[in-house]
Amino acid sequence: MRVSDIGEFGLIELLSREFGLPYPPQPGARPRPGLLVDLGDDAVVTARRDGALVWTTDTMVAGVHFLPERTSWESVGWKALAVNVSDIAAMGATPHLALVTLCLPADHLVDDALALYRGLRQAAEAYGVMLGGGDIVRAPVFAITVALSGWADVPALGQPRVLTRSAARLGDVVAVTGNLGDSAAGLQLLLDGDAFTDEAHRLLRDAHERPQPAVECGKAAVRAGVHCGIDISDGLVQDLGHIARASNVGIRIDAARLPLSDALVSIYPGRAAGLALTGGEDYQLALVAPPPVMEALIAAAPCRVTVIGEVVHYEEPRVAVVDETGREIPLSRGGWDHLST
Amino acid sequence: MRVSDIGEFGLIELLSREFGLPYPPQPGARPRPGLLVDLGDDAVVTARRDGALVWTTDTMVAGVHFLPERTSWESVGWKALAVNVSDIAAMGATPHLALVTLCLPADHLVDDALALYRGLRQAAEAYGVMLGGGDIVRAPVFAITVALSGWADVPALGQPRVLTRSAARLGDVVAVTGNLGDSAAGLQLLLDGDAFTDEAHRLLRDAHERPQPAVECGKAAVRAGVHCGIDISDGLVQDLGHIARASNVGIRIDAARLPLSDALVSIYPGRAAGLALTGGEDYQLALVAPPPVMEALIAAAPCRVTVIGEVVHYEEPRVAVVDETGREIPLSRGGWDHLST
Repeated sequence: MRVSDIGEFGLIELLSREFGLPYPPQPGARPRPGLLVDLGDDAVVTARRDGALVWTTDTMVAGVHFLPERTSWESVGWKALAVNVSDIAAMGATPHLALVTLCLPADHLVDDALALYRGLRQAAEAYGVMLGGGDIVRAPVFAITVALSGWADVPALGQPRVLTRSAARLGDVVAVTGNLGDSAAGLQLLLDGDAFTDEAHRLLRDAHERPQPAVECGKAAVRAGVHCGIDISDGLVQDLGHIARASNVGIRIDAARLPLSDALVSIYPGRAAGLALTGGEDYQLALVAPPPVMEALIAAAPCRVTVIGEVVHYEEPRVAVVDETGREIPLSRGGWDHLST
Repeated sequence: MRVSDIGEFGLIELLSREFGLPYPPQPGARPRPGLLVDLGDDAVVTARRDGALVWTTDTMVAGVHFLPERTSWESVGWKALAVNVSDIAAMGATPHLALVTLCLPADHLVDDALALYRGLRQAAEAYGVMLGGGDIVRAPVFAITVALSGWADVPALGQPRVLTRSAARLGDVVAVTGNLGDSAAGLQLLLDGDAFTDEAHRLLRDAHERPQPAVECGKAAVRAGVHCGIDISDGLVQDLGHIARASNVGIRIDAARLPLSDALVSIYPGRAAGLALTGGEDYQLALVAPPPVMEALIAAAPCRVTVIGEVVHYEEPRVAVVDETGREIPLSRGGWDHLST
């Protein structure tokens, strides 16, 4: 059996079993001793007397996660750190220290490595991340792995104040930060070899190449009393599916309420909602909370927060998207899986 | 200019400059605000009120760091974690939490991935490491990256008690844990397609495939008052060169005092000392301290510690190896560089 036969999530499930850990975790499952949040969320959380540490890692491989001939190395550097910052944002925590590993072919250009580091540094400065070294190895293909830690508040003697996937409850509303679908549209334009001669096209490209993780919004959500959140990396429907399963609830999304940018609607009028639902790599946050808590967040948040749906009871944990008449829209594909072919 | 033209250390120097950090750090240079130990040591160290965090990461690429057809996937898993544990040991700290990233070709066998995880788990259990998740991505080549954090003691209001590369002083003695050269010999046997029919051959292979980082010895060194140490990954001479430059001292090694296993001497009688000096991947510790401190460590350490040389004054920071008559032995190559061709 090859890994492409079972896909990323199938493999994670098998490997987790090797450690005696069910994956995805059962709703209500307790974390292992020493962990406050275990595998199966955006990050794992460990406790210290004066705070909680939040840990995550993410990799980008040339030809798989980006096309070197269609993007700048500076953007690759920015994005490699930003996608990790997004996981810390999805916990409502503050990013802190990153370790960077580069796999470099021997004929990789030094100037390209320097451009990559410029992008890394720009993202590090934008998000207050300390770059704490790493490793450089020779490899037949370029890859960059960032491991990032962050801090979460821990009230005296209490649990850390973080956003988990398992805290959605019946009657909660579901909201997202920013706009959705721009990144997937930008990727489409890059693949099409677009010339990016106007502002709208460039905006979509930048959404794909220079995602702006919603760190301050995640922290504002924690302060407002939100307990449930995830970042939108694989696509809204797939990522909300993680919340549905971890919380054992149903989630209903109103397609008409999806926040879509003018640029997206003008360039892809027919596909905008589809890109927003399943496109992926938005690196916005999906947040779930009781209506009064969400209203408090919307009033206080440093970014736009749009309610797009509700937590409901279905026969099984799943995500449904409905149109303006309340009729469910069939989705051919809920996101993307890194290993399936 | 391609990265193979300037090598790993040349590239690190350029990339560090991009961040305004000299590399290797100047002797006496202060770490950046928020760091207790900055780039250029085995790990970086950040402070918390109740301890210090120690961070490191290391990658193994198929075909570069190991040959899948000559080793077991279980051993690859063990080693991927162990080499990181060794960096934490080299700080005198306790390993804690690991994030694991797998780059997998689509046709990678699921059974191989499971065997890899068995090896990872064995090493995690042996060294008390919590596996905190990670990332799995598709890539044209197999690679495994482990990011590992550890804890170091911090006396009240004081600096963390860790082993750095910059703390060697004139008059100190230089010692190493365990035996040297076994791993390089084991690699040679693996490359030669040896059948490993006797105990000595298997011992050398195991030294290469299942290194046993000296965590308890590193902690004992800190308790005994040792301040200077490094793990031997690139080869004794090259790694002591890092200490020589970071501490601005000379180091003289007596070849006759190198700790060599019976297995190594019996199988490679003519090459044993050379393998011990420059072979690499020993994952033992080199420790530097005043003679009374080293004597106290030798008496208390849970592993064998052998004095092999002294810190001396040379015209420039460098490592010299002398024979029994005190004559310097020329070394053709001090270690290996991951990017040079």
